[in-house]
Amino acid sequence: MRIKEEIGMNNSTGILMVEAIELIKRYDNIYLVSHVQPDGDNIGSTLALAKAIEKFKGGIKVIKVDDIPSDYQFLPGIDMIKNYDINEPIDLLISLDSSDLNRLGLGKEFARKAKRVINIDHHITNDNFGDINIVSPSSAATGEIVYEFIKKMAVDIDKDIATCLYTAISTDTGSFIYSNTTYKTHLIVAELLKVGIDVETININLYQNRSMARTKLFIDSMNSLETYLEGKVGVIAVTQEMLKAYDAKMEDTEGLISFVRGIDSIEVACLLKEIDKNEVKVSLRSKKRIDVSRICNKFNGGGHIRAAGCTINERLPVTKDIILEEILMNFR
Amino acid sequence: MRIKEEIGMNNSTGILMVEAIELIKRYDNIYLVSHVQPDGDNIGSTLALAKAIEKFKGGIKVIKVDDIPSDYQFLPGIDMIKNYDINEPIDLLISLDSSDLNRLGLGKEFARKAKRVINIDHHITNDNFGDINIVSPSSAATGEIVYEFIKKMAVDIDKDIATCLYTAISTDTGSFIYSNTTYKTHLIVAELLKVGIDVETININLYQNRSMARTKLFIDSMNSLETYLEGKVGVIAVTQEMLKAYDAKMEDTEGLISFVRGIDSIEVACLLKEIDKNEVKVSLRSKKRIDVSRICNKFNGGGHIRAAGCTINERLPVTKDIILEEILMNFR
Ligand SMILES: [Mn+2]
Ligand SMILES: [Mn+2]
Repeated sequence: MRIKEEIGMNNSTGILMVEAIELIKRYDNIYLVSHVQPDGDNIGSTLALAKAIEKFKGGIKVIKVDDIPSDYQFLPGIDMIKNYDINEPIDLLISLDSSDLNRLGLGKEFARKAKRVINIDHHITNDNFGDINIVSPSSAATGEIVYEFIKKMAVDIDKDIATCLYTAISTDTGSFIYSNTTYKTHLIVAELLKVGIDVETININLYQNRSMARTKLFIDSMNSLETYLEGKVGVIAVTQEMLKAYDAKMEDTEGLISFVRGIDSIEVACLLKEIDKNEVKVSLRSKKRIDVSRICNKFNGGGHIRAAGCTINERLPVTKDIILEEILMNFR
Repeated sequence: MRIKEEIGMNNSTGILMVEAIELIKRYDNIYLVSHVQPDGDNIGSTLALAKAIEKFKGGIKVIKVDDIPSDYQFLPGIDMIKNYDINEPIDLLISLDSSDLNRLGLGKEFARKAKRVINIDHHITNDNFGDINIVSPSSAATGEIVYEFIKKMAVDIDKDIATCLYTAISTDTGSFIYSNTTYKTHLIVAELLKVGIDVETININLYQNRSMARTKLFIDSMNSLETYLEGKVGVIAVTQEMLKAYDAKMEDTEGLISFVRGIDSIEVACLLKEIDKNEVKVSLRSKKRIDVSRICNKFNGGGHIRAAGCTINERLPVTKDIILEEILMNFR
């Protein structure tokens, strides 16, 4: 089939997938694990593979290591993600969308106990912690790799699986706008749509489902927008007081920084999240030329060229001055 | 070629395309025309076809009938859209993305003078005003039809053409999230990406290019958000005073109503645009069940189930009461 061949990864990835499928066939106690602060790609690709293995041989378990954001509660199979006892027997652990073991939180203990670990991911920083490492940095989302993996298993991609994979790919590409999006991304998504998934409802759940608390927090924090360097740098802050006022959580800041970066003059957008009196999480996004991971590295943080973060243990106004100075330095 | 066949429209559309291409071959003075208040699909598909005909036989002219929004100024070939003298000879006029002749503004006069009119569109309400009508309501964007048309002309889709087609399709599908998006949409876009277009830069231009004026107008109008029926209905208003305060234009309200609809509880979002003291343009969007075109029809407006508009010749507060009453009636 022409399309399938076009989408296919390189040969060695194919061989690794066959070896991984052999382990899935061989072992009885198989666990999948999501990562801490799970995103759409993590949860979507995990549930898709869980449902596929369920059809393939049954008996799969999915370990919950953190709260699932409300945005993803609509996903088919979301109840499969549960707490499991570390003292139960475990043969095989499959990790998705995690670049290292620490990202698995308490899942790390399950990985230590497991006879074998399969590591499926698309982060270029992946440290190959598994016994089998299916790592494809050219894939826009782990969901793309899992699509290939399920095809390789010869499991039929039904509506539920396709819904989970669509969510994984859509969220990691910002609905197909980020530079990681390739023609393969669109070919895979075309195949998912052929299955008959409800694109409109999925997208309402993903992108038209902002709570009133989040909306009010959004408006209030945007009122505090400050710009520097003739509008090239934009800074907003979210304080604990604001969260209290709107009965919101820090995860409700989602989307804020993209909105700031979306201003035409902005090259670097900065969001300051007050975690505690002396602890501020800094998120940076850039548009075209500044490498924000370099800035965050200076404060023991990290990330990518266009998206990075760090934590600074100072009061909010002090943090703002520190990070702003570093940002402005990079424009020289 | 498998993909091409899959994307292909039905047979009669194919025959109409061949006939249209015959006219393009036959005539000398060929004009393309954009429509009033042009959107991304209109401008993108028009420029794509203009560039393709330029390669096919040369000598194509594109009539400007309205201002081009700043969002689309980055498109290759944007300078082709110019003012032309109605007294020059005209053989063939090609209209794209317009459901009727009135939508062409002064282009209507060119249509009257032309020997033949080709009408290429995807609106279900298209009244077949052309001599040849290539109307495909199942297409997400006119850009999808133009993709097929250019393939039929056997003109190579280069980066410039692909950039214009991508813009057409992306803007009319809300970056592939609206229910009009099909697997064919993604197959076509996969082909466009294969050409090597710069997806990141296009999307920065389309979606991360909000002016500071628009941003401030956005924040201020969101501060005025009022909700009714336990948050099911959201109303915001933009006044002439607000436009003056931020040096913004009414077109800078773009994106506002989607943001309101994006609140989880909202079923109907309403944007009131004060055009004059006694003239208010009403825009309505719904999420899942209310047919807003029915509401707007009552005030001699129109649109689709999920997006419609009308004009009410009253002061802003009066208009708000009138339209709100009608909206609330629809929840019974
Ligand atoms: Mn990912
Ligand atoms: Mn259109």
